[in-house]
Amino acid sequence: MRTVAEAVAELLAQAELRAAPEATELAQAAGRVLAEDIVAPCDVPPADNSAMDGYAFRHSDWQHADRAFAVSQRITAGMAPTALVAGTAARIFTGAEIPAGADTVVMQEHCVAENGQVQVRKCPLAGANIRPRGQDMQSGERVLTAGRRLDAPAVGLLASLGLPAVRTYRALRVALISNGSELVEPGRSLGPGQIYNSNRYLLDALIGGWGFEARDFGIVPDDPAGIREVLLEAAGAADVIVSSGGVSVGEEDHIKEVVAELGAIDLWKVAIKPGKPFAFGRVGDTPLLGLPGNPASVLVTCLIIARPYLLACQGLAVTPVPPVLKAALFDHPGSPREEYLRARVRADGVECYPQQSSGVLRSAVWGDGLVVQRAGRDIRRGEAVEFLPYALLQ
Amino acid sequence: MRTVAEAVAELLAQAELRAAPEATELAQAAGRVLAEDIVAPCDVPPADNSAMDGYAFRHSDWQHADRAFAVSQRITAGMAPTALVAGTAARIFTGAEIPAGADTVVMQEHCVAENGQVQVRKCPLAGANIRPRGQDMQSGERVLTAGRRLDAPAVGLLASLGLPAVRTYRALRVALISNGSELVEPGRSLGPGQIYNSNRYLLDALIGGWGFEARDFGIVPDDPAGIREVLLEAAGAADVIVSSGGVSVGEEDHIKEVVAELGAIDLWKVAIKPGKPFAFGRVGDTPLLGLPGNPASVLVTCLIIARPYLLACQGLAVTPVPPVLKAALFDHPGSPREEYLRARVRADGVECYPQQSSGVLRSAVWGDGLVVQRAGRDIRRGEAVEFLPYALLQ
Repeated sequence: MRTVAEAVAELLAQAELRAAPEATELAQAAGRVLAEDIVAPCDVPPADNSAMDGYAFRHSDWQHADRAFAVSQRITAGMAPTALVAGTAARIFTGAEIPAGADTVVMQEHCVAENGQVQVRKCPLAGANIRPRGQDMQSGERVLTAGRRLDAPAVGLLASLGLPAVRTYRALRVALISNGSELVEPGRSLGPGQIYNSNRYLLDALIGGWGFEARDFGIVPDDPAGIREVLLEAAGAADVIVSSGGVSVGEEDHIKEVVAELGAIDLWKVAIKPGKPFAFGRVGDTPLLGLPGNPASVLVTCLIIARPYLLACQGLAVTPVPPVLKAALFDHPGSPREEYLRARVRADGVECYPQQSSGVLRSAVWGDGLVVQRAGRDIRRGEAVEFLPYALLQ
Repeated sequence: MRTVAEAVAELLAQAELRAAPEATELAQAAGRVLAEDIVAPCDVPPADNSAMDGYAFRHSDWQHADRAFAVSQRITAGMAPTALVAGTAARIFTGAEIPAGADTVVMQEHCVAENGQVQVRKCPLAGANIRPRGQDMQSGERVLTAGRRLDAPAVGLLASLGLPAVRTYRALRVALISNGSELVEPGRSLGPGQIYNSNRYLLDALIGGWGFEARDFGIVPDDPAGIREVLLEAAGAADVIVSSGGVSVGEEDHIKEVVAELGAIDLWKVAIKPGKPFAFGRVGDTPLLGLPGNPASVLVTCLIIARPYLLACQGLAVTPVPPVLKAALFDHPGSPREEYLRARVRADGVECYPQQSSGVLRSAVWGDGLVVQRAGRDIRRGEAVEFLPYALLQ
């Protein structure tokens, strides 16, 4: 049985980009993954500009001018200035372009303006209050690299370069299959022995939150023929298949056998708790992540094992999420498997939901992250433990 | 001048829910804010069920049965079981309902089955391997409260309760106005004195990432009549207006004067760096957050001051984001204003982008969060500083 780290590494080693690049308008680019390196096509800012409302002048003129200048032009933001008449100052506003011949801006609070003249009471250092051309970016610099998620600052940066569109990877298409004869969609009434299908909605929200396009293939009962049919349909319509249920040891678990028949099972069972029966394989050429059926197992295996693999298939440069250290406010015996305890942070440390059964989704709703308990290690109250906030697994 | 904490508190005190609740299908509910408390309409799971593939029997029968039982029925997940014939066992699978009369499940690995009989080699404790009805949730319990963001576990929980739809607040409509005569949309060519409008794209990505609906009202030059027109239009079409630029002291800054004329300016200037000229007011009844014009100021004031206010207007129960402590890998002199340094985490601490000018957006693209430097306090290399990861400000 692989450790969690081995399973994650094995999947990442097999991960291939499965989403084509496409031209994307900037207004639609937020959250997408950049498919090209961005080299600045221009300097930002494109010209020296004023950081203040004030007066622009040539610093060496200050003594000669008896600290007073004729105001020879008024430059507001967006205007084209003319070259500064020697020995004069220009009225200038924040963001406005510095006229040729000026090298310093004095803020208006340090000046007295009267009758077309300005007296500079307190002369700043030469070069003061000017944002030089190219201060943010210089033409020809590589400023973003392919594989980066376009967060708000990155989208703003692309705009400041004047780029109306960039190449990003189209959203990864992830097929969702919910396996289990006991499952019923919400809104219907439950018969004896039945439960509602929560995994589809849990997975749909996770998959959508990572920027993928979830395609639901519904509920398939524990029947090899039905499973075969839906797996083939999903493989034809999606880049990756994520199934829940049907991967355990039992004679009513059919996902593995059908996947093996239609392609291959490359990995089965990971030393993770909850979620041991996790399986990975292929239906034809389409990768399949086979999650267990219990909702807490689905959540944990999807966040810990499936997430890095799916992000890599989307073209994202995947980096491990470092846990934060928190004081344990609980005791918990170790297990032979690495355990992911549903937990929440308080001011004084991290507490753990009392019921850690894999069937209990409320443990995750109650909390805000997972305590990582290494295999075979007991956790004792007061010791530092590793905590992964859900917010960092977005 | 207000401190950052005062400004945030003052805005939150004035925040009112501005988005109506509406029925939302579960498949569209992820990321939305819940507008009602959820009381469980049923037990989850709805009946005792097996946590294992194995055999269900009555524990007190084990000695009497000479450790062997006739197998009287086969219960797969989703089936309605019949009551257990006294003294017999039922073949049972994970998730299947426990038949009346059985109180224990033994895993199949501890049994030998042959000729319609099962011999139990290792008897578990009474009640073992059964997930009791209501273990996750009990009918009548309040399991989610209004004001919660529906993350993936919460959506899964709603599904497990069988709820096909819930009431959520429709997305807050946020009007974006980019003020500045120097601004040009990306894709056009720049004239002298002009720069590209990056704030619109930066804000659009932030606003969208928080689940709001951004409505762009374009670029408006530094002209009171044009500003008046676009503010009135935005106030009629949105729940909140977010503007950038035009809030400084200068005679070319017109947002404040026009807002004061059309409604009121309630707050102006915050002791924050970058971002001091931040303004808050109303256009008629529509709140306006007036951000400064420099992109790093826009980012910082939007994350630190605007974000909690906007989340409250969306109906979210707002809780402060606690910074994490990291070792400073830099020296930085204090300022009279609370400063938010664009920074990034390394294994050994947090480093800070060398160029912290408010005009430099690359500082944010380079990093992954903000170091909070309290007013008047120097930061010295090696000391613990407060760090706010961007990921926690989602």
